Amino acid sequence: MRRSGRGPRPADDHGRLTVDAELRGDVDEATDVDLDVADLHPAVDDPVLHSMNFLNEVAQRYPAAVSLAAGRPYEEFFDVADLHRHLETFRAHLADDLGYDPEQVRRTLLQYGRTKGIIHHLVARNLAVDEQLTVDPESIVVTVGCQEAMLLVLRALRAGPRDVLLALAPTYVGLTGAARLVDLPVRPVAGGPAGIDLAVLRAELRRARSEGLRPRACYVMPDFANPSGTSIDLADRRRLLDLAAAEDLLLIEDNPYGLFHADDARRVPTLKALDTRRRVVYLGSFAKTVLPGARVGYVVADQRVRDSDGTVGLLADQLAKIKSMVTVNTSAISQAVVGGALLAHGGSLVAANTRQRAVYARNLRHLVTGLRHRFPAPSPVRWTVPAGGFFAVLRVPFPVDDAVLRRSAERYGVLFTPMAHFYDDTAPVTALRLSISAVTCEQIDVGLDRLAALIADESARTASTPTVPA
Amino acid sequence: MRRSGRGPRPADDHGRLTVDAELRGDVDEATDVDLDVADLHPAVDDPVLHSMNFLNEVAQRYPAAVSLAAGRPYEEFFDVADLHRHLETFRAHLADDLGYDPEQVRRTLLQYGRTKGIIHHLVARNLAVDEQLTVDPESIVVTVGCQEAMLLVLRALRAGPRDVLLALAPTYVGLTGAARLVDLPVRPVAGGPAGIDLAVLRAELRRARSEGLRPRACYVMPDFANPSGTSIDLADRRRLLDLAAAEDLLLIEDNPYGLFHADDARRVPTLKALDTRRRVVYLGSFAKTVLPGARVGYVVADQRVRDSDGTVGLLADQLAKIKSMVTVNTSAISQAVVGGALLAHGGSLVAANTRQRAVYARNLRHLVTGLRHRFPAPSPVRWTVPAGGFFAVLRVPFPVDDAVLRRSAERYGVLFTPMAHFYDDTAPVTALRLSISAVTCEQIDVGLDRLAALIADESARTASTPTVPA
Repeated sequence: MRRSGRGPRPADDHGRLTVDAELRGDVDEATDVDLDVADLHPAVDDPVLHSMNFLNEVAQRYPAAVSLAAGRPYEEFFDVADLHRHLETFRAHLADDLGYDPEQVRRTLLQYGRTKGIIHHLVARNLAVDEQLTVDPESIVVTVGCQEAMLLVLRALRAGPRDVLLALAPTYVGLTGAARLVDLPVRPVAGGPAGIDLAVLRAELRRARSEGLRPRACYVMPDFANPSGTSIDLADRRRLLDLAAAEDLLLIEDNPYGLFHADDARRVPTLKALDTRRRVVYLGSFAKTVLPGARVGYVVADQRVRDSDGTVGLLADQLAKIKSMVTVNTSAISQAVVGGALLAHGGSLVAANTRQRAVYARNLRHLVTGLRHRFPAPSPVRWTVPAGGFFAVLRVPFPVDDAVLRRSAERYGVLFTPMAHFYDDTAPVTALRLSISAVTCEQIDVGLDRLAALIADESARTASTPTVPA
Repeated sequence: MRRSGRGPRPADDHGRLTVDAELRGDVDEATDVDLDVADLHPAVDDPVLHSMNFLNEVAQRYPAAVSLAAGRPYEEFFDVADLHRHLETFRAHLADDLGYDPEQVRRTLLQYGRTKGIIHHLVARNLAVDEQLTVDPESIVVTVGCQEAMLLVLRALRAGPRDVLLALAPTYVGLTGAARLVDLPVRPVAGGPAGIDLAVLRAELRRARSEGLRPRACYVMPDFANPSGTSIDLADRRRLLDLAAAEDLLLIEDNPYGLFHADDARRVPTLKALDTRRRVVYLGSFAKTVLPGARVGYVVADQRVRDSDGTVGLLADQLAKIKSMVTVNTSAISQAVVGGALLAHGGSLVAANTRQRAVYARNLRHLVTGLRHRFPAPSPVRWTVPAGGFFAVLRVPFPVDDAVLRRSAERYGVLFTPMAHFYDDTAPVTALRLSISAVTCEQIDVGLDRLAALIADESARTASTPTVPA
């Protein structure tokens, strides 16, 4: 929307600038219009991209509401001084560990840089330490957040109009949005309570092929998925890898929350750690484990690609070619900050996040206890009990649409995310996502009290609304 | 290419990792291949993307060669301590000038951030101070380098298969590469010695329309263009804006070098500063004026777009929707470093670059004098004499292809860029680009001596090669 104000605006709670409804329509003469949205790429008018804007708008309009919507990491432990400390740690690493002379150090931190990144060796070490996952650092592309990694992978895989992407549903909005930008249709695969149903996946894969389509990959978030909170167990992970090999299907594994198991001893290996046949393209993020503001993520793409001249190289190098035309390279300064954070804890982000992990585990327990207390059995309200991560899903006896969220924000003072936003169609969904990452236990208590009041009122309203006879 | 080494590699002279020829083909069994490049998006196998790789590979293989190829900024004035200083300046600005409390400061620098950026007000001030250009800060999207700005604009404008982009030729490779990623064909418009020929532009525009195509915009670099070094004069800028208005054509103005006029008093207003009808989408870069390693650029997009609900907003907000699915937001840390640099000089990058501008002006003079000395008239060798910027073009009496560059690197020890890389076809081009931004006068002297020897030998070789009778 056009705004008349010229002064700077602080970043809002969710960090995005959103539509100010009261400023809508301040320019509406036909003569004042230069372009019509119908003349732009269809993605900009897609519900998926509007969805993100809508959720941010609601959050911004009701700053006093308790937000069980925001999926950003806990920020009480953030410290601006860390930036200086991490930068200096990484500088010293270049000089002392890698033996760079001052000119090389300066060039590495300040000039144009290597397309695939300058902290690839530290990312590889982190994967070895935290995930028992051995990868060739050359198969890593450091990206501008995990979002750019998704875009690069989807851009590479979308070669023609027959190509489609399978994705476990409900699906992270950023994946669907990136797919829209590269004109790649997403075919949902119902995940179910176990996170994945292999029979459904096989059926969807075959159905797509029988329609003449080419499924390029299946997108999965095996650990504490956003938004479902569910995880795939070890046996299903192995079966999924077997299916991928048998069906010649790539898997895109997105793992932003894997470190946040409430009980570290019970963590399950990533798909990539179990992948002996190069079926998995692995997406990593430092937004939740180091700093969102640095915008650093990565992709591990060790698949072997035959080039047109017959030579064989890594998919990572094909992704790097694309990256050189998207962002050239990831900010060396941001990489240095993340690199310094990795070095500070011997490469372990599990160790670096000891306090954060305790907060998330405590909040998740507090949420589940609070739900049990407020909706004692028998109740039509049900919820998932995730073993970690940021999210739980609450099933309620009425469809949760954007109007319900608006009422909740305005009259009850609590925010959540309608699950309908994570499905790529318009069917009603009687569920909502609750996030525990950016709140205190006190805020969870207040939020749940308000949510219980909303649910009581909405249930009564729905019950009293006569249904249309079938 | 697959590499067996696992250790980190320092960023090379040009900052990109490139193919190691000696490692080619170490994996070549059919069973070891997971994907074929023909199954990926056509961009990855496009000559434009290969071109960048080839040039970097040559630079990396011959590190002892004098590089008149590298377009990166002069780095002798770079100082790692600047990062800390600029970060602190920006932090103080948030607290003292904008009145943020410590929690807001922390959140702004470390959390997810505003999609359109956090230094938009400083960018607007910079444009006012250095370019006498008044823009609404809300029409600015801060991007991950100018490259992301190009991608966002081209992605937004490419709505369907009839859409094409006009671009003054020769054309910056990054523009052509971004266009490939969004499947937008680029139609070259010969620029000629004046940087633009309006009759040719009008003819190309009408030709495209008569073919049923929809030219969405014309890409221009009016100041010291990469690669030609030419600039468009004031009268032609006004005529170009009139043509754009009359023909309902958008102009994409890319201005990375405008500050580097050898004589600041003779700078010409940007197209955007002359644009009273919102015909110009303006692309800015801080890679040459602050730090390439920060990867911060921006786009000014004040065009009014009618949305599907009838409301009218800014093109910048449509671009922000796309950006939210490409990189989410630009690194707050990188923006803070650039913001601090802007604050340190009252918003003026002309002032911040006093020493750099003197170096570039001196080098450009030294290059032209050196060319005059080595190729006295009458000579078949001719060159442009740019009024500023990083580049000059040398015409020689033989086609300059990649084989000539390889011979030059190997036998003569001097690097340049064959102009053929800036044309989107395979026709031979008898010219090469020389860059003066990353060298000393002594290196220019050595480079020109070696270049003169190469040109003498290649001219003799070409003269002695019997031409095929027509």
